[in-house]
Amino acid sequence: MPDSIGTREGSAAVPEQAESARARLARAYPAVRALTAALAAPLSAEDQQIQSMADASPTKWHLAHATWFFETFLLAPGLDGYRPFDPMYRYLFNSYYEGVGARHPRPARGVLSRPALVEVTAYRAHVDRAMERLFATLPERRWRDAAALIELGLHHEQQHQELLLMDIKHALSRNPLRPAYRPAADAGGRAPAAAPEAAWRAYPGGLVRIGDGGGGFAFDNERPRHRVVIEGFALADRPVTNGEYLAFVEDGGYDDPLLWLSDGWAACRAEGWRAPLYWREVDGTWFEFTLAGERPLDPAAPVCHVSYYEAAAYAQWAGRRLPTEAEWEHAAAGRGEVGANLLAADLLHPAAAGPDAAGPRQMIGDVWEWTASPYVAYPGFRVSPGAVGEYNGKFMSNQMVLRGGCCTTPPGHVRITYRNFFYPHQRWPFAGIRLAADGR
Amino acid sequence: MPDSIGTREGSAAVPEQAESARARLARAYPAVRALTAALAAPLSAEDQQIQSMADASPTKWHLAHATWFFETFLLAPGLDGYRPFDPMYRYLFNSYYEGVGARHPRPARGVLSRPALVEVTAYRAHVDRAMERLFATLPERRWRDAAALIELGLHHEQQHQELLLMDIKHALSRNPLRPAYRPAADAGGRAPAAAPEAAWRAYPGGLVRIGDGGGGFAFDNERPRHRVVIEGFALADRPVTNGEYLAFVEDGGYDDPLLWLSDGWAACRAEGWRAPLYWREVDGTWFEFTLAGERPLDPAAPVCHVSYYEAAAYAQWAGRRLPTEAEWEHAAAGRGEVGANLLAADLLHPAAAGPDAAGPRQMIGDVWEWTASPYVAYPGFRVSPGAVGEYNGKFMSNQMVLRGGCCTTPPGHVRITYRNFFYPHQRWPFAGIRLAADGR
Amino acid sequence: MPDSIGTREGSAAVPEQAESARARLARAYPAVRALTAALAAPLSAEDQQIQSMADASPTKWHLAHATWFFETFLLAPGLDGYRPFDPMYRYLFNSYYEGVGARHPRPARGVLSRPALVEVTAYRAHVDRAMERLFATLPERRWRDAAALIELGLHHEQQHQELLLMDIKHALSRNPLRPAYRPAADAGGRAPAAAPEAAWRAYPGGLVRIGDGGGGFAFDNERPRHRVVIEGFALADRPVTNGEYLAFVEDGGYDDPLLWLSDGWAACRAEGWRAPLYWREVDGTWFEFTLAGERPLDPAAPVCHVSYYEAAAYAQWAGRRLPTEAEWEHAAAGRGEVGANLLAADLLHPAAAGPDAAGPRQMIGDVWEWTASPYVAYPGFRVSPGAVGEYNGKFMSNQMVLRGGCCTTPPGHVRITYRNFFYPHQRWPFAGIRLAADGR
Amino acid sequence: MPDSIGTREGSAAVPEQAESARARLARAYPAVRALTAALAAPLSAEDQQIQSMADASPTKWHLAHATWFFETFLLAPGLDGYRPFDPMYRYLFNSYYEGVGARHPRPARGVLSRPALVEVTAYRAHVDRAMERLFATLPERRWRDAAALIELGLHHEQQHQELLLMDIKHALSRNPLRPAYRPAADAGGRAPAAAPEAAWRAYPGGLVRIGDGGGGFAFDNERPRHRVVIEGFALADRPVTNGEYLAFVEDGGYDDPLLWLSDGWAACRAEGWRAPLYWREVDGTWFEFTLAGERPLDPAAPVCHVSYYEAAAYAQWAGRRLPTEAEWEHAAAGRGEVGANLLAADLLHPAAAGPDAAGPRQMIGDVWEWTASPYVAYPGFRVSPGAVGEYNGKFMSNQMVLRGGCCTTPPGHVRITYRNFFYPHQRWPFAGIRLAADGR
Repeated sequence: MPDSIGTREGSAAVPEQAESARARLARAYPAVRALTAALAAPLSAEDQQIQSMADASPTKWHLAHATWFFETFLLAPGLDGYRPFDPMYRYLFNSYYEGVGARHPRPARGVLSRPALVEVTAYRAHVDRAMERLFATLPERRWRDAAALIELGLHHEQQHQELLLMDIKHALSRNPLRPAYRPAADAGGRAPAAAPEAAWRAYPGGLVRIGDGGGGFAFDNERPRHRVVIEGFALADRPVTNGEYLAFVEDGGYDDPLLWLSDGWAACRAEGWRAPLYWREVDGTWFEFTLAGERPLDPAAPVCHVSYYEAAAYAQWAGRRLPTEAEWEHAAAGRGEVGANLLAADLLHPAAAGPDAAGPRQMIGDVWEWTASPYVAYPGFRVSPGAVGEYNGKFMSNQMVLRGGCCTTPPGHVRITYRNFFYPHQRWPFAGIRLAADGR
Repeated sequence: MPDSIGTREGSAAVPEQAESARARLARAYPAVRALTAALAAPLSAEDQQIQSMADASPTKWHLAHATWFFETFLLAPGLDGYRPFDPMYRYLFNSYYEGVGARHPRPARGVLSRPALVEVTAYRAHVDRAMERLFATLPERRWRDAAALIELGLHHEQQHQELLLMDIKHALSRNPLRPAYRPAADAGGRAPAAAPEAAWRAYPGGLVRIGDGGGGFAFDNERPRHRVVIEGFALADRPVTNGEYLAFVEDGGYDDPLLWLSDGWAACRAEGWRAPLYWREVDGTWFEFTLAGERPLDPAAPVCHVSYYEAAAYAQWAGRRLPTEAEWEHAAAGRGEVGANLLAADLLHPAAAGPDAAGPRQMIGDVWEWTASPYVAYPGFRVSPGAVGEYNGKFMSNQMVLRGGCCTTPPGHVRITYRNFFYPHQRWPFAGIRLAADGR
Repeated sequence: MPDSIGTREGSAAVPEQAESARARLARAYPAVRALTAALAAPLSAEDQQIQSMADASPTKWHLAHATWFFETFLLAPGLDGYRPFDPMYRYLFNSYYEGVGARHPRPARGVLSRPALVEVTAYRAHVDRAMERLFATLPERRWRDAAALIELGLHHEQQHQELLLMDIKHALSRNPLRPAYRPAADAGGRAPAAAPEAAWRAYPGGLVRIGDGGGGFAFDNERPRHRVVIEGFALADRPVTNGEYLAFVEDGGYDDPLLWLSDGWAACRAEGWRAPLYWREVDGTWFEFTLAGERPLDPAAPVCHVSYYEAAAYAQWAGRRLPTEAEWEHAAAGRGEVGANLLAADLLHPAAAGPDAAGPRQMIGDVWEWTASPYVAYPGFRVSPGAVGEYNGKFMSNQMVLRGGCCTTPPGHVRITYRNFFYPHQRWPFAGIRLAADGR
Repeated sequence: MPDSIGTREGSAAVPEQAESARARLARAYPAVRALTAALAAPLSAEDQQIQSMADASPTKWHLAHATWFFETFLLAPGLDGYRPFDPMYRYLFNSYYEGVGARHPRPARGVLSRPALVEVTAYRAHVDRAMERLFATLPERRWRDAAALIELGLHHEQQHQELLLMDIKHALSRNPLRPAYRPAADAGGRAPAAAPEAAWRAYPGGLVRIGDGGGGFAFDNERPRHRVVIEGFALADRPVTNGEYLAFVEDGGYDDPLLWLSDGWAACRAEGWRAPLYWREVDGTWFEFTLAGERPLDPAAPVCHVSYYEAAAYAQWAGRRLPTEAEWEHAAAGRGEVGANLLAADLLHPAAAGPDAAGPRQMIGDVWEWTASPYVAYPGFRVSPGAVGEYNGKFMSNQMVLRGGCCTTPPGHVRITYRNFFYPHQRWPFAGIRLAADGR
């Protein structure tokens, strides 16, 4: 992971050699926490209250839950004399940890007008002060375990930074006023008038290794690093664009069951899908809802907010397929955050590909890329002991792996071994499509 | 209707003889509008945002929708030069008027963080200023039609005052913190230690008249006044108390299908009902959620927040029945707001019956009383022309009539001919039970 | 009730004066039972097995359940030495009697391939033989109670005769082969080329009596006879025809929410209603599914298989209303089965009105007529003691009264005081529309 | 595949070397078809009519649909002068082929009392005669394509043989009479008093090949044969028994969310699972519904009718995991039908393991074994052109692979490369559990 990332505001990743883990985390903690607050800042207390579907959570809830993680797993068991801010919060802000006990039902998070935002802000400050004390006072012998949990907690909070933006985008999109989260940033010289043609890069088959090999933080689901056979394949050097996807739409892609997986076709009919989630046609012109409000569809930008089912149907229509996660990771070797359209680029929207490059473009950033791989354990995967063991393993059914991060992924959070996962029908992640093909 | 009511803050009813309708309404309008604002005042913007079920609406939405009524039916068509505050509001704050056009889906009202509460407040002020101008400038020849609509609009806003309290009570009850809308008012000398025994009053049968006979405001569904045959009957002189209802609960009332209507039993099982909506048993003690938070159940106060199905099952268990609306109205003759536990009493909760009186007690106020009468048109009922014709008539199926107002009914709003209506499974109104019996 | 009815095959009603109740019932019992078997006869064992929705039951189930009634309420408690055919049948063929115990879930009746039809036929024979013994041997002192139950059981079986035809019609209609229950009977001279214009008959208002006054069998819900005030009204002298209803369809009746009750409009949209249940348009021509298969729509015949919601919307469109049950019964005074299109006419389908008559035509037979009256207890209604008390009373919510019988109502079963009831969304009864209007 | 299989009645697999494909298939066709008829024979027309859930189909429908395959894909396009038995059958008996056109809705198959069973039997005979003509007359140049389709059609029919038994078992289990499909066969010396202890077999890791390599029939989803890396692992040498699973049940396995996948726990709660699908506890004794009726649970027999979620929870409880399909196939090398408890053994129920053997026992037969592998395409998978391309590929999402066949799998149908697949919540397949563990 490049050094430069670690110095950005809010990055959880700090070079590990130069300083002790303790010092590194003590610096990263406030930066990550401050970024969360900064992301919520453009939103009123009312905005932070709303929940537009069971899959999404209110901004305020994200603020509290990410804090709950530190209180529950670090402070309550580990900081002498720590007094919980409010004993009810253990229940209110538990997301899904059965080991921690009962919890407020997920679809009803939006009804929690109390605690008020100001109380949640005070909760964050309370926990932050206690964490400061923990950094300062924890005996060295207990540090190792704590460090792992703190690092996990920071990456957990970063995940909620991205979820916060996904969720508020969905909620605002349901408002007929189509309000903006904030005005559009100037994209500078990034967006060319037209996307360059996609080129295909060929990769020979062979025995490769994927997964995290140590040397930095990774989630348990990225481990162990292991061998995989891949056959020769080709990969598009950029994601599918809105313009390309529009051709699928206009060719009747949403009306032809033969292009779709069976479950995908059922979802398409049941939900009445006619285009990606945030597209809208008005008098023959297509618009797209963004965090800066509704804008004309940019044909050069990557298509975004499609489900796995749509991605697979598009690939079928195009005569191609989606890559496996092993193929993707193999092709992404050496790619990092430099130049990527992640949260730090501050666009909050995928942008058109830049000029041709040495390898496939936009592997990191812009849109999460659906892979053809169901989310399952790597060979030799071990669930962590304790409640944090519920972090990843129990979700290993019915979901698909996405790779590469997107325009709302916080700095220092993503890496090429990173395995994101969503259900194949979900469309509110910033998810797009990269095509692959069998080699010959 | 007694004079004294008209002088209360927020009363829509103003004695009609003493002054012109115009002057009367010009005085009533700001009073009603101010009461709505006063009811919302204890709530934060976050509180006013939340919607806990499709049946309920956010406080902010009530504030806007009641205003929308005046803008849509009075100002837009009738005030020269009126400019709508925001053209989108016609869509956003339409409740169910098909004649006005499409509307924002009801279950999604809680997602409208925009317009912000401050904007809705500005909208109210904008409309109030325009209404002031309308009162001042409308030509006399157009006044008659306008007056009827203004009066309807004020009674409409009063209905939303009560709904606002019902809805926020439901929303707060869903919060595990069990927060109060506001601290309990001192009930003063009202609540005796025990409820007096219910007495039975007998009424001979005969030909009676019910319904509104003119002389003041009434909804279209209260008209025309018409003849009804009633047979001799008896009526309990106060509503069923919590203590009495608890005996039903403890006798297995919720486990015996033979006590229930068939649809009621299905609802009871499907919803897992074990007690009235806001009751909760903790270690053998019963508590009740109120607008002042959770409190020990008062055995002397009327049981509240039961469905029609529960009311009917209770009556069956007690060997009695519910009164018809004709019986109720006949027995209530001459009753008014004086001394009643309505909103003006400021308890926001039903209270135990006072000492024996000349007629049946608590006919007005405390709890709406489920009747055995389905909500249908009176003989000769005519729907009003235009969009306001959707006000009542189209709801005349599947609902039951409730009579008498409750502790959150605003002053000047209820009368003995007033027909409230809810679906038989609904429990969030302040609804209770009065028993009746056949005469001999 | 006219004598002639009693002599028809399968009639439960037998003149009571001429013979003892015992002799009368001993004659009626085999006749009613034989008619049920005759109605099932055109159907294969496979046909008798199917259940097309939770509201409907398989033919075989009807055969068994009607038998279960006699076994459960007469033989098991009252015939010395009676041995139940199969103890499990008490559970399998209980419809909804909570007092009898648990029962097989209604929507799963269609899965009961066992007992086989031949076993159910043997069950019927077993019970019939035992009933014969009961008629012969029951001591006189126990006869009075038994007679009431037998009479109820026969009328109960007649209701299931009609349900059997309704249910199999629905099931066959779901089959893309559109099979006939049996070939069409020749309607003889009954169906004229065009329906005569509807005439209006005026009735003065006043105090009338409705309900059963004794002198013959009636269900508990028809009692007590009681006084009702009616206002002057007018009634169409025949039901609405298919041709008239088609004009409503073609005028956009199913697209105009202002014509519909609010709940009706919701049902219309949710179910995608575009026409009555069994209508189908093929290349601009309308067809109707009947028990004789699909046939061209007869514009002169009464419209059939509409919900209450459609009936009410049609009436609104026509500028009229539906009659109350009191108005209907008052206008029907003196009408009987003579000449009516009931089951005995063997058409199994409503037929066009005959020539003008002394009173309103087709009050009895052809189609059940939706009234504007919710199904509630008459004043002074008493539920019968014991399990048969569940027969009617517990259904007194959310349903609407229909009057007059239809083309599949068995002989001797209907009378002008008869109160049928269905939910307002249900369309599979043979239900139609008769218009009413306020008098002047 | 051993020769001996090919000679069994109803086997589709015929040794390919000894005779021409044409002759081989001409012999296999009537054998397979006859077996289907034999499986339906113990059932009445009523039994063959019923459908107990949307996932299952009536026996009669299976009889017709398997026939439809030959008519639609072979006879209609390929046999000169072929006249369809009934043009409507193309619609009625299409299962899910979008390429063939619209179809009767799956959950409504149970309502098709017409065509009657006798007509479906005639349909089968009609098609069989035409197939005989096709075998005799098809020009050699068209034979190659036809042979592939016929072979597919026979394997398709075999799949429906197993489905027929799964489905009727489910339907009969819903009948409170708990009727048997047929009396139990004598299991002979097969079932020992207690299951032998499970032993563990270790397999070294390495690069292995899985998938069909040609030389016999295989479905498209078994191809291409390809390389896979496996790590060292161990495999239990027999499936988990009822006795072992009962220990999990009695240890509170269904009450501990930490053992379950998140989606699995949600399903467990929503469906109220407390034990495998067909288990029932009566007064402390466990029973199991079988095709021979309800019987005491045999602790030595493999547990059957568990979902993937239950299998995974059990493995978690046992401190093990499920094998991947590659591990399974690798360990199964060389296993065949000899001695396996498949349909030909005629037990129709899994049986306890026999004595220790050279390799893992019961890999073939008894119960399908849930693997940890989601059902996805093998690298290089190609969908077949035309409508039969819908056979497998479009189901490659959300399902899990099961391996090894079961006690109702017809002879000659299963092989070690065979990939069965079901949704992780489905319990009506004869599916059980074999444990695996990481090697060291």
